[in-house]
Parts: sequence; structure tokens; C-alpha cells
Amino acid sequence: MGERIAVLGAAGYAGAVAAALLHRHPHFELAHVTARSDAGARLDAVHPRSRVPLVLEEYDGGLDVDAAVVAYPHGAAAPVVAELVERGVRVVDLSADFRLRELATYEEWYGEHGAPEWVGGAVYGLPELHRDAIAGAQLVANPGCYPTAAILALAPLARAGLLADVVIDAKSGVSGAGREPTHGKHFVSVDETVTPYKVGRHRHTPEIEQELGGDVRITFTPHLVPVAHGELVSCYVTTTRAADVAALYAEAYDGEPWVEVVAGPPGMQEVRETNFCRISLHGDERTGRTIVFATIDNLWKGTSSQAVQNLNLMFGRDESEGL
Amino acid sequence: MGERIAVLGAAGYAGAVAAALLHRHPHFELAHVTARSDAGARLDAVHPRSRVPLVLEEYDGGLDVDAAVVAYPHGAAAPVVAELVERGVRVVDLSADFRLRELATYEEWYGEHGAPEWVGGAVYGLPELHRDAIAGAQLVANPGCYPTAAILALAPLARAGLLADVVIDAKSGVSGAGREPTHGKHFVSVDETVTPYKVGRHRHTPEIEQELGGDVRITFTPHLVPVAHGELVSCYVTTTRAADVAALYAEAYDGEPWVEVVAGPPGMQEVRETNFCRISLHGDERTGRTIVFATIDNLWKGTSSQAVQNLNLMFGRDESEGL
Amino acid sequence: MGERIAVLGAAGYAGAVAAALLHRHPHFELAHVTARSDAGARLDAVHPRSRVPLVLEEYDGGLDVDAAVVAYPHGAAAPVVAELVERGVRVVDLSADFRLRELATYEEWYGEHGAPEWVGGAVYGLPELHRDAIAGAQLVANPGCYPTAAILALAPLARAGLLADVVIDAKSGVSGAGREPTHGKHFVSVDETVTPYKVGRHRHTPEIEQELGGDVRITFTPHLVPVAHGELVSCYVTTTRAADVAALYAEAYDGEPWVEVVAGPPGMQEVRETNFCRISLHGDERTGRTIVFATIDNLWKGTSSQAVQNLNLMFGRDESEGL
Amino acid sequence: MGERIAVLGAAGYAGAVAAALLHRHPHFELAHVTARSDAGARLDAVHPRSRVPLVLEEYDGGLDVDAAVVAYPHGAAAPVVAELVERGVRVVDLSADFRLRELATYEEWYGEHGAPEWVGGAVYGLPELHRDAIAGAQLVANPGCYPTAAILALAPLARAGLLADVVIDAKSGVSGAGREPTHGKHFVSVDETVTPYKVGRHRHTPEIEQELGGDVRITFTPHLVPVAHGELVSCYVTTTRAADVAALYAEAYDGEPWVEVVAGPPGMQEVRETNFCRISLHGDERTGRTIVFATIDNLWKGTSSQAVQNLNLMFGRDESEGL
Repeated sequence: MGERIAVLGAAGYAGAVAAALLHRHPHFELAHVTARSDAGARLDAVHPRSRVPLVLEEYDGGLDVDAAVVAYPHGAAAPVVAELVERGVRVVDLSADFRLRELATYEEWYGEHGAPEWVGGAVYGLPELHRDAIAGAQLVANPGCYPTAAILALAPLARAGLLADVVIDAKSGVSGAGREPTHGKHFVSVDETVTPYKVGRHRHTPEIEQELGGDVRITFTPHLVPVAHGELVSCYVTTTRAADVAALYAEAYDGEPWVEVVAGPPGMQEVRETNFCRISLHGDERTGRTIVFATIDNLWKGTSSQAVQNLNLMFGRDESEGL
Repeated sequence: MGERIAVLGAAGYAGAVAAALLHRHPHFELAHVTARSDAGARLDAVHPRSRVPLVLEEYDGGLDVDAAVVAYPHGAAAPVVAELVERGVRVVDLSADFRLRELATYEEWYGEHGAPEWVGGAVYGLPELHRDAIAGAQLVANPGCYPTAAILALAPLARAGLLADVVIDAKSGVSGAGREPTHGKHFVSVDETVTPYKVGRHRHTPEIEQELGGDVRITFTPHLVPVAHGELVSCYVTTTRAADVAALYAEAYDGEPWVEVVAGPPGMQEVRETNFCRISLHGDERTGRTIVFATIDNLWKGTSSQAVQNLNLMFGRDESEGL
Repeated sequence: MGERIAVLGAAGYAGAVAAALLHRHPHFELAHVTARSDAGARLDAVHPRSRVPLVLEEYDGGLDVDAAVVAYPHGAAAPVVAELVERGVRVVDLSADFRLRELATYEEWYGEHGAPEWVGGAVYGLPELHRDAIAGAQLVANPGCYPTAAILALAPLARAGLLADVVIDAKSGVSGAGREPTHGKHFVSVDETVTPYKVGRHRHTPEIEQELGGDVRITFTPHLVPVAHGELVSCYVTTTRAADVAALYAEAYDGEPWVEVVAGPPGMQEVRETNFCRISLHGDERTGRTIVFATIDNLWKGTSSQAVQNLNLMFGRDESEGL
Repeated sequence: MGERIAVLGAAGYAGAVAAALLHRHPHFELAHVTARSDAGARLDAVHPRSRVPLVLEEYDGGLDVDAAVVAYPHGAAAPVVAELVERGVRVVDLSADFRLRELATYEEWYGEHGAPEWVGGAVYGLPELHRDAIAGAQLVANPGCYPTAAILALAPLARAGLLADVVIDAKSGVSGAGREPTHGKHFVSVDETVTPYKVGRHRHTPEIEQELGGDVRITFTPHLVPVAHGELVSCYVTTTRAADVAALYAEAYDGEPWVEVVAGPPGMQEVRETNFCRISLHGDERTGRTIVFATIDNLWKGTSSQAVQNLNLMFGRDESEGL
């Protein structure tokens, strides 16, 4: 058995997937799962699809593990992550708390920070961009689901300085909004409809801009679709100049195990419950625009299987082990 | 009883909705319904949701009616429409055959035309733009579903000369693709996924550009979503100059019975099985873009209830009768 | 304008449909809509599909109306219904509080009753069984959704004394469980699954048995299906003797405007957003069983359009007016 | 690398899942995939969710393999299976052609048989009932999806002679009806509805009765539900006498790796894309009936993962390898 890992916040969707993946991982040992309101119940009772027989514990700060996946809401994560990191536990944080490198940007979009001394101290956990830094990191800030898809869709263009103007129209399944019941996630509210939300003010916007670099300002609009999990970003790019776009993506992703560049526009279904990001490129001859689609499973590559990919890198395992 | 109307092609989704609306219309008389492969069957047997007890006839050119709704595929419609119009029957054509005013544009996007002498002779059947011309028309070219939503979303900006650059990201339910069974419409192919299609080459593109006028070139990308009927267009507009956008929409639509401008982004569900188009306006402060959403039911305002709205206008009835 | 009607509890699914139907009713006047937590909001803001522009009021007992539709949860309904009836307002109660004629049965399945003096004083509001009594009733207990479908499916057999043994396997859309958000109604919980619930202990059981009469004991098992609204009951009947079952149903339903006996097994979709109950009959030759399917829209014939049908009868209107 | 396996008919849903499971199997080698109309295409192009990069070949009888999974329609399978078996290839046949031991029963339900000399020569491939015989079999007739769930649900009662009367109300996702596009599988036909089909005459009926043994006659009614894959059977049993039912199921399944007896009624979602069958037991005190629910994924335990389970047994591997 390898390193002992805890999943904090395992009763939520993301935590439950992380726990399931680590439970069946050939190397790591899933040592503890924790939860607040469901503490005392078995994880496979709270999530009947799960086959993880561990009892959810209440986290009181004393777990003896090598690493932790923290699946708390933003704000709640910061102090717990800081405590873990400070006593030597390596952390993959699924929240947004340590993704933005500038404290001022965090405060503008999220409000007060619970552990400002650690802002800027995390590695942004997108292996395709920061593989080496992740391997040595004490604290990995796991990307948001939309940023994972959007950044992978646009990074080759960004790196080449080609992004003049970007519109991202994103579609997400309902699990991306979390497990807490609300009117907006009631089956009857979501079924047979598509609804835009947080127009012009979704908090993943600055995260995408940070990783694309430069001074590009994106328009990012998410839509809720009647799908349990899955995410598609449709990116409309005006480039600064003509370029061999296909070659840029081949160069960027040909050696990547979890990024597939395909010919046809991909559907969400094609990556469901996998760690793959599937991308396609299209030129709109009439307008000169470049259109890039990228699709992931928001709970897998968009969150929890990517967390396992990061853990593999952090502990010197094969990046794809257990995925 | 009022004018006698036939629905040709009533076995398809659009034709069946048109027949149902006319069957329960307080004034018009649904005199005939026709179909090819389902001829001889009762319409309510082919479409169990329908309560139209008429038998589907094979159309042989001899129906004695005041008007006809032609629900044929493009190409097949043109000669039949021409025959009807030439013997004095007023027609609302649901196909694309007479929507484009330039024959060359039709040929570029659709191929050879079956009745070129009538190209340019139809009125484009969007009541909110062409109400008076529709009232006097012999032939009304009923708009496509995407164009209905997109043109209503953008017309106030277009009319004011404000459209500098437009991206339209559209989402449509499966009925928009018609009733003929294919792999792509199999439940298993559509369920739990969103898929872009006809990227950069959907035939509704020139129709939208024609009605917006000027020389704007749009990027239009449709996506298939797991919804039976419903359509949402998300329009990302760079305007030529600052303007009081809300005032433009109020001016355009305050008196319109079937266009609702609302505050929040609307979901498809809100207009399901109605003749409404619901629109919302948003400014993206960070980028200066204007974002307009519009949603319709693709089989109602996007096709068949709009056809009835047009028939009402053509025969001097209240525009909303029976809707 | 005709009688003035209030809908109490109009923010729930059933109340909202009742309000929408009464708002567009050609005779009745929808005079008031009330709600608790949403009081002060407009109904069309709480339910964006609704076009009812009335403001939700808090109910304090003082509404001046001819009749009220009470859409409260069981238990909460009883005292309010009693107060209304006692001051002369005619009531259609959508709750279960006055459906069971025996107080002891109510207490066994629901607990203490809030207005026991009125138990037995209501007419069971299934027009196909109790049309004349409804017309003269002060208080109509509107049937539950499952009982509506099950009783219509089985009444002709029951009346003929043919029911020896009955299994009812029922499937319901999610709106039947109400609008309050819970884990079980979260889109992710319902999507892509079918789940039995309340096995052997659903409270609609005694209501069905009461109306079928005799001493038949049914096995009734509901299942939640990924559908917004719709309900199907599959009834497996061992009959006491051979009989011309088709003739019994023809006799019972040939003159009924809202019951359709059809050949093929009906799907929920066929009655969606209508007041119809569609029934089919099948003999299983190998076992001698009679199988009866019945499908309704749980929010329409199963609740709110049936309430309007009852109001029509109570005030001497055509039973189908506004439906 | 271990035994070389071919999947014949890999373009269908069942064949594609079998190919995917064998492709990632740690021991077996997926040597060939075949198809008729899609021959020449890569499997991962025909099924974008698949990551099997093999080209679909046309089967001409000459494949050099140790075993074959035959995923042909019934009727078409028989001669091909016979040819394979006769030249020494071990076969798991997914069709119905060799499941019924009596030729007369086959002819009654399916018509003429294409290789009658092999009828009765296959082992029925339900490992929980026939594990030892499967291990030594040349030809395994893989059970139908409904029979897998129904037999596992009822076998402990059948074995104890407790089945007096059985009603099986079954619900299936659409993939169970196959990949060929039809009106009935169009998204719009299936969405938001539940529809019974083949009432009293579904061909899985005699297969279930054969394996339950004795002379019990079941009433079996399948329903189509808006789910891609998943199956639930609700079994209503009148027992011949009182018995400790829970003890019978514990005895039957406590050691079974792929059968889970749980407390609550299980939902389809809980076993999606797994080889599990999840069962729950309920007593209906009011009627004395025993109710048993069983759920599987129709394409996994109901077809293709069960085929792999059988191959593991046939070649002396751990039964759960690769599952």
C-alpha cells in the first residue's frame, strides 16, 4: 500500500468521486473520508452509486495522512487547507481559494480570504500546463471545471499570442452546481430547458484569464443543461493574425495522455466518467473566426479525476494510474 | 366557419402542430391534412398526442381550399407551393424555399431551386417585422426556427445600425431536426449530451443575415441539446457605438403581443408550447459587449404557431386568435 | 364575468396550474392567489411559465370569493378548508384531508385530523363517478393523482364485482412529489434512473380501496421516473369470473368527454398538459389475467384541471369549459 | 497476453460494450471486431465513447481466435454460432438462439431455428446459477437482460418452491431496444414518457419461466423509460407458504461478488455501467405479498459484462477480472 490519503468533504459530488477513485486506486490508500452533516453514515449509503464502505468522520484536524483532497466550498476551504499544509500534509484543494495568484482579484470576486498568507503559494493543478511544478508542490489548487475545459481549449492559441478577442459560451450539467437541494436544481426546473446564468459575472472568469495570460478579456457565459454531468465550452476566437492553428494544437497535445484533438465537434457523452478532455478546431471562413470546442466531465477531468492525476504526479506515480 | 385550410405534410412534427392549432382554431376550418408515407392513417394515430381525427390524404393537386400550410422539406416544397399559388390558393410555406430573396444565395446554400420564378415573390413571415406585407401576401415564407429567435433578438440593434460583430451560439431541442429516425436522433445519442453541429455552415445563416440587413457577417453555431422542443439563442454583440439598448427594445416590442422582454435570462421551458418569444438584455461591463438571449418553442413560434399567426393576419383576423 | 375564485397555495406546482387554468377560463374570475413564503411576489415571477400577473397574497381568512381551490399539504388544509366552508365559500380541496370517509382510516394513514367534524362531509371529486353529487357539493375532496388514474382504470371491473386480486405498479413524474427542494428531487438524483418508493405504505392506497369498494385489498407500488409530469398505472387484475371486459369499459366511458379507451398501451406523453385519462385493456392469455393501463398528467387530470372540471360542475357550467 | 477473443457484431450497443471491456481486460486479447454495414470504419469512430482503435472487419468465417462473443440479432446468430463452435471456437452468444432448451418453445416464440442441432447444447450463462457448467462449456447462451434481472430476483424463491403466482413489471432504458433508428427510439418519442410494450407477448417470458423451473406461469410486462441504459424489475409474488425470505436470499447471494441484497428499493442509477445486480425484498403486510426489486445495467450485467464474466469462468480466470 502506498501513501495514505484523506478526502475531506466526501459527501458532496466531487468528494464522492474522488473517494471512489482513490478507493479503487492500485497504489494509494483511501484512509479517511469526512463530512459535516452526514458524519456517522457510510459513504455508500449517502451515495448509493459509490461502493466505498468507509464511515464518514467529522474532521477535527487530527488525521494522520500523507495527503488530503479538500472538497469544501470556497471560503470554508482556506483555513482547513492552511492547517493541513502547515503540519506537512500535502493538499489538493478542489475549492477556488488558492487558484488566483493575486489576493486583490480574489477579494474582488469572492470577498475576504480565510488564509491570505497562502495566496500565491499554490501550484495551479492543470497537469498539461504545470506538470513539473505540480510534482514538487505542497499545495495544489485544482482548477475549476469551466477553467479546465476553457484553458485546455485556448492555451495553444494564448501561448502563441493569438488571442485578440474571445467569447466562451459554456454548457454544464447540473452536478456542477453541487449537491445541496435548491429550486434551481429541482428536476422540474432543469428538465426540458436550457438556462443561462451568472451572465457576465461567473467567478471562473478571472481564473481563465489568469491562466491564458496576457491582457485578454474574455466574455464567459455559462448555461445549465438537462444533463447530470458533462461540460462543453464553445470558444469563438478572433486571432491577432493568421496561423497554422492545427499545428499548434498538435504540438501542444500530441504527447498528452488525457487530451484528444478530434475532427468532429465532440459531444459531452464522449468523455463521461473519464479523465479525457476532447477538443476540436474549426475555421469559420465567412468571418475569419476560429472556433474551438472542448468537452470534459465536470466531476472527473473538471474536478476529481484531475485531482487524482495531480496526486499521481505529486507522489511520483504514473500520471494515469488508477484513471 | 371561416376559411378552409389544408396542411400539407401533416405527418411531420411541424405539420402536426399546425394541424392541431388549426383544428381547434375558433375561426378557420381545417379542411384537409395530407402526407405521403402515412396516407390513409388518421392523424391522431400517427401522432398520439394529437386529437385531430382527420384521415391523412395523399396530395394530388386538387384540394379546394382557401389557404394551405405547406410543411415539406426544402426542395420538395417549391413546385407544390408554386402550383398552389398559381391557382389562387394562399400559402404559408414552412420550408426554406422562398425565404431568401436572392436566387444566387439560395443556390449557394441549398442547390438548384424548384420554382425560381417565385423567388423574391414571397413575404418573409415574421409578423413583428413585416406585419403589413403579410396581411396582403399571396405567399408567405415562414421563417426558420433559428432565424425567428435570432432576428427577434437582434432586430432592434440592427435597425439602429449598431451591429459591428455578432456571435450567435444556439441550442435546439431534437424536434428541430425532424421526425425521420436517424442515428443522431436516437434517444441514446442525444441523452445526457450536448453536441455542436454544422459548424460554420448551417443554412439558417444567410436567412438571418438577410433580415438583419446591412453587411454584417454573423458566426452562427447550433448545438443539439437533450430537450424535445425548445430553442435558445445566445447572441454576443459588439456594437458600433454606445446606445440605450433597453430603450430600443422597449420601442420595438412594447406593443407586441408575442414578444416579452424580461429581466433575467429566460429558460426554454418558459415558452414551451406557446407562441411567445422571450428576450433578455445584458451588458458585459468588462468587455463592453452586449449579450442578448432569446428563447422560443421551435415548433410553435419557431414554426407552426407563427404560421397560424400569419394566417390570422392574411385573413384579417385578430393576430392572436387561436393561439 | 362569473364567480370569483381564489387559489390558496398558488406557489406550489398544483396551485400554479390551477391558477393558470382559472386565469384563462372564459367564465370564472381568478380573484386572488395566496402563498406563504412567496407572498408579495407575482405568480409569474415565481413560476416563469405562468402568465398570471397577480401578486401572491398572504391568506388571513378574509377573502371575499364564491369558491376556493385549496392547494395546501394534508394536515395544513383541514382547518383552512373548514373555515372557508363554514362561512359559505365552496371549496375544492386538493389535499387528502377530506377524501377518506372514515376518520379511523385517516388517522391510521395520516395521523390526527385538523377538522374531524367535516370528515365524511365532502364529495369525492371524481366527476366520472360522482358527477351529480359534485354539482351540489359545498366541499369537494379532489382525488389524489394516483387514485384518479387507478380508480378510472379499475372502476368498471369493480362495479361489476370482478376484482379478485389487484396489483398496481405506478410510475410518476417528479412534480408529483411537490416543489420543495430535497435530495430526492435533485436533478442528479432523478436523472437516468427509476426508483420505487414507499413500498407497501403509500397513502393513496386506502383512497383507491375506498372508491373501488367491496373488500378488495390492493398492492400499490409507486415508482419515480425521470419525467417532469405524467403518470402511468399498470394494473394486473385477477378477475372473479370471465366477462366481456371491453363492453364494461365502453358502457362506462363512451359518453365521457375526458376518458379515452384506446387500443395500444398509451404513453404518458399522450395526455401531457390535458385533462384526459387514456386507458387500454389487455388480456394475458397465458395467465388469464386482465391488464389495464391508465395514464394522466398528474398536475392536470390528476389534480388541477380536474379541480376546474369540478368547479364547472359546481357552478352549473359546461364540464369542459376552459379545459 | 492470454486467449484471443473476437467480438462479432461490435457496431451494436452490446457488441461495443463487450469490445470495450475486452480491450481493457488485463488478460484477454481483443483480436478482432466485426460488423456488417460499418465494416471498414474504426470502432471508436462508430462509437465515439469507445476508445477501441480496432477497425471493424467483415466476418467471413475465417478468424483465428480462441473464443468469440457473438452479438447478432436472434435468427442471424444461430448459423454463425454453429460454424464457430464446430471448428472449436468457444462462444458466448448474446442472442436468444440457444437460450431455450426446447426447440418447440423456440419455434413458438421466435419461428424457425437456424441451427436446431445445437438447441439444448448450450449452457445458460447466468454464473450465479450455472457457474460450474459454464466453466466447461463450449457454447454459452448469455441470458437476456430482463431474464438476468428477473431470474436473480426470483431464483431463491423458485428453488424453495415458493412461487405460487408472479407478476413482473419491468422498466428498461432505450439501449435495450438496440441501435437501429426507429420512430419508437427517436428522442422525441421517448422523452418525458413511459410506455408499456409487447404486453403479454415479450419473448423473454419463456426464458424466465424455463430458468425458474416448475410450472409457474408469469405475467411479464416491459415498459420503456427515458433512460439510456438501466433496467428495473418489480416482482409481485404470492408465495405458496410463509417462509423466511431474507434467509433464503442471504444463503443464495452472500458469497456472490456481483449480487447485492440491500435494504432500500434500489434505483437503476446505482448499478449503471457495472456488473452488479442489486436486489431488495419487501413484504406487503396488507396483502401478504412478497415484493422483490432487482436492478441491473441492461448492457452490462444484462448483456456484455456478464459475457466477460462468463469468458473469465470458461478460461479459468478470476470471475471478476476486468470488471
